[in-house]
Order: sequence, then C-alpha cells, then structure tokens
Amino acid sequence: MRCFYPVISPSNLRFLSRCRLFNASSPKPQESAATHVLRRNSLSMNVAVNREAFRQAVANTLERRLFYIPSFKIYRGVAGLYDYGPPGCAVKANVLAFWRQHFVLEENMLEVDCPCVTPEVVLKASGHVDKFTDLMVKDEKTGTCYRADHLVKDFCNEKLQNDNTMTADKAAELRHVLAVLDDLSAEELGARIKEYGITAPETKSPLSDPYPFNLMFQTSIGPSGLIPGYMRPETAQGIFVNFKDLYYYNGSKLPFAAAQIGQAFRNEISPRQGLLRVREFTLAEIEHFVDPEDKSHPKYSEVVDLEFLMFPREEQTSGQSARTIQLGEAVSTGIVNNETLAYFIGRVYLFLTRLGIDKDRLRFRQHLANEMAHYAADCWDAEIECSYGWIECVGIADRSAYDLRAHSEKSGVDLVAHEKFSEPREVEKLVIATVKKELGLAFRGNQKMVVEALEAMDEKEALEMKATLESKGEAEFNVCTLGKNVTIKKNMVTISKEKKKEHQRVFTPSVIEPSFGIGRIIYCLFEHCFYTRPSKAGDEQLNVFAFPPLVAPIKCSVFPLIQDKKYDAVAKLISKSLTVAGISHKIDISGATIGKRYARTDELGIPFAITVDSTSSVTIRERDSKDQIRVNVKEVVSVVKDVTDGQSSWADAKGRFPAHSSVSADA
Amino acid sequence: MRCFYPVISPSNLRFLSRCRLFNASSPKPQESAATHVLRRNSLSMNVAVNREAFRQAVANTLERRLFYIPSFKIYRGVAGLYDYGPPGCAVKANVLAFWRQHFVLEENMLEVDCPCVTPEVVLKASGHVDKFTDLMVKDEKTGTCYRADHLVKDFCNEKLQNDNTMTADKAAELRHVLAVLDDLSAEELGARIKEYGITAPETKSPLSDPYPFNLMFQTSIGPSGLIPGYMRPETAQGIFVNFKDLYYYNGSKLPFAAAQIGQAFRNEISPRQGLLRVREFTLAEIEHFVDPEDKSHPKYSEVVDLEFLMFPREEQTSGQSARTIQLGEAVSTGIVNNETLAYFIGRVYLFLTRLGIDKDRLRFRQHLANEMAHYAADCWDAEIECSYGWIECVGIADRSAYDLRAHSEKSGVDLVAHEKFSEPREVEKLVIATVKKELGLAFRGNQKMVVEALEAMDEKEALEMKATLESKGEAEFNVCTLGKNVTIKKNMVTISKEKKKEHQRVFTPSVIEPSFGIGRIIYCLFEHCFYTRPSKAGDEQLNVFAFPPLVAPIKCSVFPLIQDKKYDAVAKLISKSLTVAGISHKIDISGATIGKRYARTDELGIPFAITVDSTSSVTIRERDSKDQIRVNVKEVVSVVKDVTDGQSSWADAKGRFPAHSSVSADA
Repeated sequence: MRCFYPVISPSNLRFLSRCRLFNASSPKPQESAATHVLRRNSLSMNVAVNREAFRQAVANTLERRLFYIPSFKIYRGVAGLYDYGPPGCAVKANVLAFWRQHFVLEENMLEVDCPCVTPEVVLKASGHVDKFTDLMVKDEKTGTCYRADHLVKDFCNEKLQNDNTMTADKAAELRHVLAVLDDLSAEELGARIKEYGITAPETKSPLSDPYPFNLMFQTSIGPSGLIPGYMRPETAQGIFVNFKDLYYYNGSKLPFAAAQIGQAFRNEISPRQGLLRVREFTLAEIEHFVDPEDKSHPKYSEVVDLEFLMFPREEQTSGQSARTIQLGEAVSTGIVNNETLAYFIGRVYLFLTRLGIDKDRLRFRQHLANEMAHYAADCWDAEIECSYGWIECVGIADRSAYDLRAHSEKSGVDLVAHEKFSEPREVEKLVIATVKKELGLAFRGNQKMVVEALEAMDEKEALEMKATLESKGEAEFNVCTLGKNVTIKKNMVTISKEKKKEHQRVFTPSVIEPSFGIGRIIYCLFEHCFYTRPSKAGDEQLNVFAFPPLVAPIKCSVFPLIQDKKYDAVAKLISKSLTVAGISHKIDISGATIGKRYARTDELGIPFAITVDSTSSVTIRERDSKDQIRVNVKEVVSVVKDVTDGQSSWADAKGRFPAHSSVSADA
Repeated sequence: MRCFYPVISPSNLRFLSRCRLFNASSPKPQESAATHVLRRNSLSMNVAVNREAFRQAVANTLERRLFYIPSFKIYRGVAGLYDYGPPGCAVKANVLAFWRQHFVLEENMLEVDCPCVTPEVVLKASGHVDKFTDLMVKDEKTGTCYRADHLVKDFCNEKLQNDNTMTADKAAELRHVLAVLDDLSAEELGARIKEYGITAPETKSPLSDPYPFNLMFQTSIGPSGLIPGYMRPETAQGIFVNFKDLYYYNGSKLPFAAAQIGQAFRNEISPRQGLLRVREFTLAEIEHFVDPEDKSHPKYSEVVDLEFLMFPREEQTSGQSARTIQLGEAVSTGIVNNETLAYFIGRVYLFLTRLGIDKDRLRFRQHLANEMAHYAADCWDAEIECSYGWIECVGIADRSAYDLRAHSEKSGVDLVAHEKFSEPREVEKLVIATVKKELGLAFRGNQKMVVEALEAMDEKEALEMKATLESKGEAEFNVCTLGKNVTIKKNMVTISKEKKKEHQRVFTPSVIEPSFGIGRIIYCLFEHCFYTRPSKAGDEQLNVFAFPPLVAPIKCSVFPLIQDKKYDAVAKLISKSLTVAGISHKIDISGATIGKRYARTDELGIPFAITVDSTSSVTIRERDSKDQIRVNVKEVVSVVKDVTDGQSSWADAKGRFPAHSSVSADA
C-alpha cells in the first residue's frame, strides 16, 4: 500500500529557473474567491498533520541513509546548500544519464558545456543584471533580511486561517492581495507592510522599505578587479551566445536543438522548503531553435495520442480543476500554441513518468497572461505534487526571438538564420539614402552618428519623417548617441520604398525552451517512491523507496545467507561479475539477519537482492513484491542485467525460474 | 603514419590542482646544468617549428569542428574560459562515464556531489584563504597584472637562448634562478626583477613589487553581505567535511574511498597555454581513507606486474631520464612509499592508456622533496607529453592525516576512525588532574580557561611542568585564551602516567588522493589521437582523430551512397535502431561525395561509417584502416554495437563478414 496523504491545494511555489524571465518572485495560479473558501475548509488539521508526518518520514530516511547531507554540516552548514551523498549522487547520475538518452540522443541535440563564471556583459544583455531581483526588507535593528512578499503572504494566510473575527470585506481584501502578490511593486508591497503593521518575525522590530536585491552571486574575473562577473543563474545564455557556431555546425539548417546540463546559482534571500529552494542547483536545459513561420515538428505524431492532466489558462481563471486532455486535441483546439511546444510537453511527460513520477500527481499548467513575459508565445510548467504542494519542476516556454535578439543587439553580431529561396522573390524594401555632403556641412564631427541614427530608423519612424519632410521641409530627430535632438532638412536624406529581388529570407529563429530543475524532480521522485510497510513482527514500520531500476542508486545487493566462507566466496565471485557487467551493487557480509539486510536495502531502494544459500544456485528477491526466484549461479548476473536494463521484466523472470520461499526471509 | 613531432624537453608546467597544497606556482622538475645545456642544443628551431605547426593544426581542427569554443566569443571572450562544443562535450561525457566505471564502480567508492559555493570557514581551515596565492606584479602605469615568476622565467629563458655574449657565470646564475624559481619569496623575486631590469612586457613601464594574489573567486553568500564565500578551488574539501557521515555509511570500516566529479575554479592572474590553464575546470577526485599503520591494498596483486615509465626523485636530481619500472619492484625497492599509493598509480596508468593516451608519452614523476608539503608521505604526478611539454594531468598524493586534522581542529568535530581490539590492551596514559578548588581561589573568573589550558597540554609540556613543579614548587604557564602567563602551584594540578586498559584505538586516517584534471587529460588525448593523411588526390592533408570507440564523441555515421529515396529510407531506419540501441550517430544525407563525407567524419573521430548502397546490405568502414566490410541491413546495428561497446573487435568483424572495396570510397 502506498502511503499517499490526501491531495492538498496548490501552494505558491516558484520554479527555480526562468519560466518567467526577470521576475524571480513566485508566479502562482490565480485562485478565485470560491477556491479559496474551499481550500480553507479542506485544509483540515488532519491533512496538514499527515502531510507533515509523511514529509518528516521521507526526510529522516533520506538524511539517515545519506541521500543528501546539509553542506558543510560540521561547520553548522549554510542555508540553501546541500550535498548529495552516495545514493543521492547515484540517483542524480541516473536521472541525468536518462535525460541524455531521452532527449539529447533521441533528438540528436547539440550538447554544450559552458562555464559557470560569466562576465557581466552577457547577463546585462539577457536582462539579469537589471531585473533578476526579489524585493527584500531588513529588520531595522538586527539587519536580518526577508523576502517582502513572503512576509505579506505569511501575514495574509495566517489571518485568513486563524482570525475568526475578521469581516468578509477584510478577508476578501487579503485574498486579493495574495492573488496579485507577484504583481505588486516595491512601493505597493511597502504600503501593505505598513498598513498591516507587519514586523520582523523573530524580533518584532520595524522593517525597512522593500528594495530590489539581485539574486546572482557576484564575483570579479582576473586580478585587476575591473571585470565584474556572476555565477550564471541559468545555463541557457551559454547556448544563445553560441547560436551562430551551432547553426553552422548543424549545416545551417533549422530546426535544431542545443542542450546543456550544469550548475546554476541563485543567491536566495532566505531559503525555505529544504531541497526545493536552494542556492546552487543542477539545470538541464534545451533550446530548440525553429523558424517562427513553421513550428510544426516532424515527430509530433509520436506524442499526439498521449493523454494526461493539463491545467489550461481558462480552467485556472474560471476556478475549475486540471483535467485529462489528449495532447493532439490540445493543439487542434488552440489550447497549446504549436506542435513543437506540444511535442516537448509530451516528451517531458514520458520522461517524468518513466523516471517513476506518479502520473496522477503530475500536471501541465499553462502560464496565465500576467505570468508570461510580453514576448513569450506560450508557456507550460510540468508541476509535480508533493508534500509542499504542486511544485514547478520543468518549464516549457516558447520564448519567441527574444534571447537571440537581445544578444544580437548587445554584441553587434547577427544571430539569424537564412532560408534560401528556390527562386528569387520580389519584395518591397525601405531605402534610406543619406546625403553625406549636406549632413557633413550641418553636423561636422557629429555627422557619423547622425547618419547611423538615420539609417537605423524602423519603417514607421522613417515614413513619419518622410511625411514631415515633405510637409514642413525639416524634422526634429532624436540622435540617442548624441543625447539630443537635431534638425534634419529635406536635402539631407531620401526615404523611399523600392521593389527588390531577394534570394533568401533572413530571420531570427524562435526558441522553445524546456528547462528542467533536476534537484526538484529528484526530490519529488523521492516522495513519490517512498512508502512504509509493517515489519514481519509488526513492531515497526519499514521504509521503502520503490525506485524503478532505471533510477535506483544501486541495482542489486549480494548477501551470503549465513556467515560461511563458501558462501562468501560465491558472493564475491558474483560481485566481480556484476562489476564487469557495469551493474552497481552492494555486498553485505555482515552477520545481521537476512531480514535486517533486506530492510536496509529496501531503504536505499535497491530493486533486487541476490542471496547466496548454496554454492550452485542463489535466490533473487524483488523489493516491492518480496517475491523470490531461484537461479543458477552462472545465470544470475545476466538475469539481473536484463531486468535492470529494462531488456526484460520481473514478471518474465518469474515465468522463467522457479519461485522460492524461505522461512528466514523478510524482517 | 602518426604525425609525431620529435620529443622535447620538459617545460615547466604545473598541475591545475593541489598536488602541492598552498603553493600555486609551478613546481618543476629540477634540471641539472648538464640537462640544461643539452636542452638548449636539442631544442632546435626545427623542433620548435614542427611542434608549433602540429599544435596549430590540432587547434584549428578542434575549433573548426567545435570541439571547443572560446566562451562568450560574440562578446570577445574572457581569457581562460572555454566551452565544450558538441563533439567536445560528448568526449568529456564519455571520459567521465569511463572514470565512474573504472574507479567508482570498480572500487565501490562513495560518490558525493557538493556545491561549488563554499563558505570562508571551510577554506580557512584547509589553508586556501591564507596560502592559495600566486605572486603578482602590476604595470605601474597601466595597472596590467602579471605573474612575477612568469616574467622572471621568460627573462631567463630568453637570455639563455639568445644572448651569446653572456659569461658562463651569468648563464649559470640564470639557470640557478630557473631551478629555484618556485622557492623564491616575494622579496627575492622582487630583487631579481629590479636587478635584471625587468619591465612590463607590453609597455616597458616599471613594475610594482611582487605581492600575493589569492586565486579563489570570491563572493558573498546571502543578502546581508556578511558571509564571505568562495568558488571552490578543488572538490576534495567537500569530501573531508563529510568524513564522519561517510565513515558511518561505510559501516565504520576502513579503508574506503569517496569520490567527486565537479567544477573547480581558479582566478588565474594571466592564463596562458589555451585549454591547459583555465579559470574553471572539471576535476574528478578520489579520497581513499586508510589506516596509517596499514597501507596495504587488497587488490594490489592486480597491478603489481604493470610496467611503465617512471621518473623517481633520484633520477631527476641526478640528471637521468625516466625509465620503465615494474610497479611491484618500485614498491619493494622503496621507490613508491606504499601499496595503496602504487595501486592507484597502476589504476591511473590503465585508465589513461585505455582512454587512448599513448603509453610512450606518459610518465609518472615523483615529487621532489621541495615540491611536497611537509606532511605528505609521497606524491606522484601522471604527466602526459604534448606540444606544450610534459603536462601534469593527475596527481596521486599520500597526504597523511593533514586534511582531516585541519577540519577537526577548526570545527571541533572529531574526524577519526576506531579500531576495536579483540581483547583490551594495556597502555600507559598521561593523566592531568586539576584541583578546581585551588584554581578557583587563585584565578576566579579565569579558572575555566586555565583548567582547559592545563588539560590540553601535550605529553612533553605536561612532563616538563611536572618536573618544574617538583623542583621549584610552581611553574609559569602560558594560557593563550587569556593571552598571558599565570603561575601554577604544586597544589593546583597532579600530573601522572597511569596504566589503562583500552578497548579500541582511535586515530585520524591517512588519505591517499588521486586527483584528475579532466580538461587536461582531454586536451592531451586530442593531441595523441590527431594525425593527418594525404587525400586520394594528394592535393590536401586530411585530419583524423583516432579516438578509441570508448571515447569517440559519435560512434558511427550513416550515409546513403547517393541521393535516393530508397537509400534515405534505409538510412533513417538504421538511424532509428541505433538510437534505440543507445549508439550516438550522425546521419548525413547531403549530396557531398562519399569521400568528402568520410573526411568530415574522420575529423570528428567517428570510428565507423555505415554506407547504404543497397536496400538489403550496407558497408561498414573503419576510420583508421579505411577497410570496409559488407553486412546485412538487419545485422548492422548489432555489429556496430559490439565493436563500439568493446564486446568484439574490428578484426573479429572483418573475419566474420566479407570485405568490400569501392571505387567511390575515400577522398
């Protein structure tokens, strides 16, 4: 039986990456007043207690078995930094290996590996230097820092849950504040803090006004101190700046995808929620470059029939729930913007469920209009439900041409694609011809800058100037590089539209970006795979991680049934063959009872245990069913290899080999 | 034919990691005057030109085929930062996968994954905050920074090579400076710079005095600005601080090894030598914890017969060359300090040669006494020869108990192991019994600190005090926590030696640390695998990377011989099966000649090419021999899988299938 606490309402969690560029605060599903009342009632004490107890049980097992360790523990640690211990590290390596297999290899993606240290200019272009901030307040006495929105959120939630004297109007107001929290400016948040009398949680001291805090770790590159740099907040920028080379490497053909796995950094103001909100994490990001005029996908047909929980914008704003939708239908009815976006949604669904994520606790939630950047065409988050609520683990966004354009402008390097026409096409083109002699006479040393500004006018500006010049003979014109207006006369420039033959179309590709928070996926996987079962004696609960063999940190354990040199020798021989076959395993020749040893391996999520109880044949036990089969010593490694590689199933193996039952088995 | 430029003398290169803790400057093999003369003569113009041309040819191919890319190229890059492009990234992933297989899986190591962001206290304890520095000088006019030792080295080398008027005495002096360069203090280096009139290379401006520059990238953790942090300069510290948990996880048994793969950072003053000296790099480190009284290794017998080039201390100081030594002999004659160190030297040799490093250009060089930290028992570098000289790529050091002791002291947490005795042993123990009443009367508020200081005395101090108290009745005693001396009287403390029964031995384990600079290994691999061959027409040189299938970025290519829908369909079918089998491959349906397409895949080091020239059978071509065999379409994927997995060899495949020769083959 899975220990599955009752479904709870969404909590306001934010994805660790850039589902919504520049706003680092929590995007949250808008909840209608109706849902909120419902939530207040349904979130009974009981559910909260179960959820908390479940989370504690998982956390205890994870920490005791060293899946993770608070970093620098002997120095009392640093908030928001965690180590993966041996089994956690192995799960992570397996998840990443499968990610490479499922995405990079399957789609022939171009994987790159760029440094974490990034010079300021790159993150200036991407917008992170100016806008990757959270609003912060300081305890005016102690200097302790808090996220301003967290304090307001905590205040509103606390009032709504515990203050029974509150008027209906006041309650409605607080609910409204919660709903629009992410859209509030520093001034608005500050006003709320003042109005509600919110003080520092620990000391009750007054708080400063909210001000933006940039979430990037800053450093300095080289010895001079003159090259500011940051630890990258995402891996994507490393791909964008290499677009030109990657496009050429791909034979100057679209579409193609580039991918990167690596560390990213976010200097959180006050990390909460354990492994879900950390200051350093592994991202796996894909940038799929596509012609904006053709977002079809050649392998779309392979995902079109998939059905799973989707939570479109419409359902969220009208207070409905997520519902099962067929992916093909979502595209044909316009819920999902295009085929390529849908293809990746489908592939992400397959990836997560194959890892072991429970499909009933996985949904794809569409971003609301106010959550998306203005340039984004559509954006969906794969959200996984765990004891903290629905957690954004993968963001899948159609970011249009934004990123390539930003770097193109800043660097002066064209980041564009070309479509060669089979025969030339006639197009109407704006032509701005400057008369250098007249401009030189009028502007002397400034001539170059005026010419450049004139030639850089877009069609609208140019046609307005043409009209003004024709009607008035001169026009005021702002030259931003000079920082002032100049007067352009009719004899200085000719603006016209001409028909031209073109041999190719030059355009900035759109980018569709699936971005995976690997640590979050792993944490949710831990919760989804965890269950307890009574011991044989019934005196304690035994913990089990039901990892699929694909992600299990160790595939198999090897035990001699009793301490005996003959059995030890067989166990060591099997261990050696397992190593040669590349199967990670654990050999336990301690004198503990076989039941205790099974319980230990169940806690690590080891799917198969080989017990040596003779020198000719051994038993293999499957973790969840506790069923055992008897297999010849010579065959055992290939049987384990097949069931862990996914070449065959445990059911197949049970069919092929005799069942074994033992009195000395499970604890 | 391998393009193998003549062997050149060692150049002074330093390993990117901590072969020699705290001294970030280049350790260099000491060269006798005799070797130096030899070197001066042998380093003829010709050799240097060949070497330079070879390096350029490799670099051109690597950069053109996107094995690597200078990072942030569109913004004119940052010195010392490089991206791995698609084939480079794949080679790296293969090297790391093999590292995990060869070390972690084979030895059942405990792999961990710790953050890069590290609080100051950890790196204070390890010594990096105070001593991880290089000496720097500044151009006094422009502020440009240089490594002081680089400027002195360049000056000496230039003089020795080009100044024919120099006296023998002067030449001997400069050679001496080169030999002791790493041991010179800031003052001594400054004196040389003044004496030789060395100025800034670009501007000829005067230089500042040398001063230490810390090579860690500094940052600040959290919003307060009060927690200083650094980007880790190595991954090892993450393992040391977790020793206690890892030891417990291992059943409180020694020996065991922990391992970590991850990014490390070094803010070089002025990076040189391309991919070999970078500011961010991937390290793979092993910390093997062992009882200092028993450094035997259970699997030592598996490496004892290996023979390869070793360069012991003795040979270096007496001006001899590296020589082939059998590993077992090196241990039995005391050249290598202990079995465990030798075991890892042997395993590193197997790792590097299986990757494709040429064993004739690989040597293990022992650190000289002046290169090793005082606490180190022995230290060997795996050095690989490339066009830059002999490069330290792996450091294998017996670091004794230094690291665990340092963290134990700083954190106050015991990082020790226990050996339980089968029966109690009698030992003589120092007992310091303080008389609280007398101490309280004498020191009042300071009593606690005096008691702690007394109890913390080591055996020597305590016995000295005992003697003084007995002879004089009182003793002066420094209490460092009070910052002053106090007078201890005879009635305040009893010092004695007592016989005690002990049930266990408590000790700090020794650590043997193999530390791999992954980027350096990969670069040397690129050079060792690179060769050129004439094209069929003889009009150009074709580039080939002879990667073994294990590390080849792409295992196989698939070409339809001519543009034909039938052949395209077969090629796509084969491609799909290769994906299912997990074999990375590249399909090229461009109209280029088959020779051109072979040449393209040779440049990427793809070992096998499948050419579709019928719908029933295809050819497989091996990259280096250019031999082809004809294989049935249905069998082709399993044949390619076997030869790339190492299940069978190309020779086997040639024996099983008919040879194919074609007029339209290689370019």
